[in-house]
Amino acid sequence: MSDFTLQCPTPLPVDGVVQLAHGGGGRIAQRLLETVFFDAFANPILDRRHDAAVLSLGERRLAMTTDGFVVRPWRFPGGNIGSLAVHGTVNDLAMAGARPLGVSAAFILEEGFPIASLREVVDSVRTAARDAGVSIVAGDTKVVERGKGDGVYITTTGVGEVIAPDPIDPSRIRPGDAILVSGDVGRHGAAVMTAREGLELDTVILSDSAAVHHPILAMLERGVTVSCLRDATRGGIATILNELARDARVGVRIAEAAVPVADDVASVCELFGLDPLYVACEGRFVAFVPESDVDAALEVLREFEVSAGACRVGTVQGRAGEIAMTGRLGVERVLDLLSGEQLPRIC
Amino acid sequence: MSDFTLQCPTPLPVDGVVQLAHGGGGRIAQRLLETVFFDAFANPILDRRHDAAVLSLGERRLAMTTDGFVVRPWRFPGGNIGSLAVHGTVNDLAMAGARPLGVSAAFILEEGFPIASLREVVDSVRTAARDAGVSIVAGDTKVVERGKGDGVYITTTGVGEVIAPDPIDPSRIRPGDAILVSGDVGRHGAAVMTAREGLELDTVILSDSAAVHHPILAMLERGVTVSCLRDATRGGIATILNELARDARVGVRIAEAAVPVADDVASVCELFGLDPLYVACEGRFVAFVPESDVDAALEVLREFEVSAGACRVGTVQGRAGEIAMTGRLGVERVLDLLSGEQLPRIC
Repeated sequence: MSDFTLQCPTPLPVDGVVQLAHGGGGRIAQRLLETVFFDAFANPILDRRHDAAVLSLGERRLAMTTDGFVVRPWRFPGGNIGSLAVHGTVNDLAMAGARPLGVSAAFILEEGFPIASLREVVDSVRTAARDAGVSIVAGDTKVVERGKGDGVYITTTGVGEVIAPDPIDPSRIRPGDAILVSGDVGRHGAAVMTAREGLELDTVILSDSAAVHHPILAMLERGVTVSCLRDATRGGIATILNELARDARVGVRIAEAAVPVADDVASVCELFGLDPLYVACEGRFVAFVPESDVDAALEVLREFEVSAGACRVGTVQGRAGEIAMTGRLGVERVLDLLSGEQLPRIC
Repeated sequence: MSDFTLQCPTPLPVDGVVQLAHGGGGRIAQRLLETVFFDAFANPILDRRHDAAVLSLGERRLAMTTDGFVVRPWRFPGGNIGSLAVHGTVNDLAMAGARPLGVSAAFILEEGFPIASLREVVDSVRTAARDAGVSIVAGDTKVVERGKGDGVYITTTGVGEVIAPDPIDPSRIRPGDAILVSGDVGRHGAAVMTAREGLELDTVILSDSAAVHHPILAMLERGVTVSCLRDATRGGIATILNELARDARVGVRIAEAAVPVADDVASVCELFGLDPLYVACEGRFVAFVPESDVDAALEVLREFEVSAGACRVGTVQGRAGEIAMTGRLGVERVLDLLSGEQLPRIC
């Protein structure tokens, strides 16, 4: 048409006030992290920018990860904030190739939150921890006045022992590595959206929230080489592929038709005008493995229910930092980081 | 007068809704912990009920602790929520005789919180961590809508390596042990109260918020036997002595005149009708040491500025679970757990 290019001038709100978009996975949030947090806390461990920090303790390697959970509503089809918090933390440890040793849970409760609801959340923490084979070893409870919270917020922190022989880290991603996803994407975001909007559907979409450490530890134990792992939470797989491509300084090429999205999830996303590739999962991850190990990796992953739908979606190649996606009609487009956030308070 | 005894029937609100008192250190909070959290998460590590969990990793012992910080106002004389969070976590590790390995920090921000204030908090985290010699190795940021938070909440979690030869644990407290405090008490609570109420005083009371691991590690390294340690945070020294006496099944006898309280702190407490022994500190701890090690312990503690005011306040003796205090006029009274909370959102 013309050589005029529509440019969205990304706002750089590192002054001013905190915005909802600062809590998302997009550019605005990244910029806040870069200029306020990473600059201040700079150290070699944090600077690796992975889901979990790895600390040395003598000969042993210890993984540590933390996440705050503020999902709204706190209860959604397939789970609640309690199970979500346990899964999120166990998964972040798994992304570093670590077997969980213990999880802590700190609750911030709003005055007036029903004790029966608190029991439901705590029971969900307990069940999720038991099913994942981890113990809640430390905890804390604070209460804030009405109107200073939203029922319940939970921050979980996990420590684990790294069993992966080599670090699982963006820096180990190599051109030619295959990119696998562990199942269909966008289910958690779609479940929370329908719960939030009170949408009545023919079939209820359940969140994919689940602990995924068993298949990952099995891959490692059976000697599959894994360059990097990341769970596709805030911002979905499009966002984490962007982060990894940036940190690893590689390009990524994926095929839209290869990325599994359930029909009902696709419908809900269309209704809300969202791209499912940017919608959060809480039990799905992306694995980068050398071409030689693809079959072995998929064989292990498909043995576990939580990753039975694992498949290959693409390859590491192309321009550093760029995610190129071939659409269903063969047209290629770039999957960029979003500026703001599609869905606040999704986890 | 009569044999009628005024009894305050402690409410047992384990049904109903969350109250502010559930976040305090008193009976109501204890009951919530017992019936909702400890029952659900029961495991041998959590059941030890100490400030930090101790996990085994091969030959090594790993301490882990978590705390949410919701102090209001977030800035107070002598610190802010950022330094408080680091100090609280380093101190909880120290209470298990552990040298800090790493700290994580998860922020829950309210939409509209000034970025300049966030920078101030983050800078305070950075400075406190640097001064304490620990790194912030992992972090997270979530943003909630206006009216769903209160500026900034922080949950910090610490991991450390236990260097104490024997477990530092309530179960090791023995009759005859001396009870030391590391300095004057109630300063943090008094500082926050004056900031909250906008009180104009002749002299500004500064919070005692500080990391206390250096004197504790020094005691352990020099071979001082330490039965148990606990920092006197929520509920002050009266509350933590009650908790320890209950868990250790011992009695405690202290002398009111021996417990250091600064004059200005005593005045502020009187103004608000509070007993300074129940007012939170954030840089003071209680140490239980055998009689034989009292002089050595005090000598080490007094070498460090943060514990220069260390002194002995009492002895382990008397009826199990009871804290008997001899007043300034020689009258003995029992320091019980409060029912509710003196000061919500003090940490």
